[in-house]
Amino acid sequence: MINRRWLIAENPLGRNLKVSDFLADTQPIPRPGPGEFIVRVDYFSLDPALKSHMENLASYAGPTTVGGLMPGGGAGEVIASEHSGYAVGDKVTGPFGWQNYACTDGTDVSRIPAGIACETALGVLGVTGKTAYCGFVEIGKPRPGDTVVISGAAGATGSVVGQIAKIAGCFVIGIAGGPEKCSRLVDEFGFDAVIDYKSEKVRSRLRAIAPDGIDVMFDNVGGDILNDCLARLRHDARVVICGAISRYNFDPRSPDMPEGPRNYFNLVHAHASMQGFILPDLERFHAEAERRLTVWLKGGRIREAVDIVEGFDCAPEGLMRLFEGRNFGKQLVRIAA
Amino acid sequence: MINRRWLIAENPLGRNLKVSDFLADTQPIPRPGPGEFIVRVDYFSLDPALKSHMENLASYAGPTTVGGLMPGGGAGEVIASEHSGYAVGDKVTGPFGWQNYACTDGTDVSRIPAGIACETALGVLGVTGKTAYCGFVEIGKPRPGDTVVISGAAGATGSVVGQIAKIAGCFVIGIAGGPEKCSRLVDEFGFDAVIDYKSEKVRSRLRAIAPDGIDVMFDNVGGDILNDCLARLRHDARVVICGAISRYNFDPRSPDMPEGPRNYFNLVHAHASMQGFILPDLERFHAEAERRLTVWLKGGRIREAVDIVEGFDCAPEGLMRLFEGRNFGKQLVRIAA
Repeated sequence: MINRRWLIAENPLGRNLKVSDFLADTQPIPRPGPGEFIVRVDYFSLDPALKSHMENLASYAGPTTVGGLMPGGGAGEVIASEHSGYAVGDKVTGPFGWQNYACTDGTDVSRIPAGIACETALGVLGVTGKTAYCGFVEIGKPRPGDTVVISGAAGATGSVVGQIAKIAGCFVIGIAGGPEKCSRLVDEFGFDAVIDYKSEKVRSRLRAIAPDGIDVMFDNVGGDILNDCLARLRHDARVVICGAISRYNFDPRSPDMPEGPRNYFNLVHAHASMQGFILPDLERFHAEAERRLTVWLKGGRIREAVDIVEGFDCAPEGLMRLFEGRNFGKQLVRIAA
Repeated sequence: MINRRWLIAENPLGRNLKVSDFLADTQPIPRPGPGEFIVRVDYFSLDPALKSHMENLASYAGPTTVGGLMPGGGAGEVIASEHSGYAVGDKVTGPFGWQNYACTDGTDVSRIPAGIACETALGVLGVTGKTAYCGFVEIGKPRPGDTVVISGAAGATGSVVGQIAKIAGCFVIGIAGGPEKCSRLVDEFGFDAVIDYKSEKVRSRLRAIAPDGIDVMFDNVGGDILNDCLARLRHDARVVICGAISRYNFDPRSPDMPEGPRNYFNLVHAHASMQGFILPDLERFHAEAERRLTVWLKGGRIREAVDIVEGFDCAPEGLMRLFEGRNFGKQLVRIAA
């Protein structure tokens, strides 16, 4: 038995990803030392931030190097253990990297509760769902009746934020690309309204759908979409900066980087705030997030959006799907058994 | 006796102010009706926001029209009264407009306490000082030991913010234009360090002076200076947006408007917030601000920076001084007796 791995072949800073940024190799399956265990990785969890990790731009993550293992979260099953806390057969999630078998001492590993699927553990009950809950609830501070706008609404985080906003009693507007995503957000995920940024003018549509303005903007995109939303803030609005998919193919130091939001100064007229976060900053809310998301999921108040590509070989293409806007919801790679 | 007034002759939207945007006329001095009184205006208070008022871009102020009285705060003495609350000889501040004599029913008028000069009532104890206190303390939330950066540090608000930041136990860096302003900020106003943006690179100087980054940024300028500061935020930093002098000569809807801050996305990495405000939003802190500023002023812990141009005729040039960076501290027009 061998361990197949995806290595970083090139640093993609300042440009689009390509398949040749990744290089597959094979290694013997590692053996666990004392206090370690081996996980057979069944799913890779894909996220736009992985590109930043490859570029060493994600200050919160460990450094990566060309020639090193491609980082990333995953889920699977313990197949060998010299660790007192984990036994063969345990299902776990953790930062296993893009490989079939990971050796770990348990750092940042979580056990998957009984009855929860790997897809769910990596999606609604994983980093994705916690990011949605903690960012929206703790930074966005929704109040019933608020008008909430979510960009990247058909993405992993956005689709969960919209459903939490409905539970919170808000009027929820999603911004997404293309008619299929938009109709699914309304029909399957309960959004009150959608804007197809590929065929509609965001600013004039916002004026029509939300004539009194925006109370909470949850931004995954940046660029013109963020700027158009800043033009429509209500007094005391909260702008939550979660991601900026429009920026990730540019070098932050390059003059080609899309410009910043000109309308930032509307924060003054609206007495509004714009705040960024990453999930570790909000660790004190993680357990609450997981508890509540579990209840909502079991109660049918939140549904999962999972987009799966099949097979270890497809991992690079799977990651590229995120930057092409091809995924609906959480993008996973399922590793063939 | 006549009432000389400055009227708005042209809307200066999208360009620099010029003297011909103002037109002087004369009127009979008004007579007070029941519940009204007449103020002889001795000082006009100048502020960059007056240009926005002329352009009807200041959402919080009443509308202005070409041909109408130039708006603006002022200070003076009651010379006739049919109002039970005000007597001849009372000293007051209020939104009197650019005229020698104002008739008012007392709306937004404040009495100047005994022993306080008009300059002080319009400056450190007026809108300027309250803006500095409320914005810095309530939105900036300074903690002792914090590194605070103030742009427009030699302006009316900035010079007060820096002194409050020293009282709060912070390390205070001012950004201003030219060696004279910079040396005065250190020598007379107690700033710990200054950056002359006209001759120094803000970003590299910040790296040298504040190697651990910025905790509070109080911004009066926008543009490159704001962007450079956003590159140097510490974790949990607060960016207070008070003004943006670099933008006021542009139409917000014009493509010529300077671009927004590209580095806004550092709010994510730094778990930082950017918030705007105008003084009426923070009304619940106004009385506290006035009390504390009075104590600090009397105790010599804050000194006043007042820049006076002499004479009614000079009011337009006085306002233009602000946009040319020629004022140090609060810009007033003193009306000849």
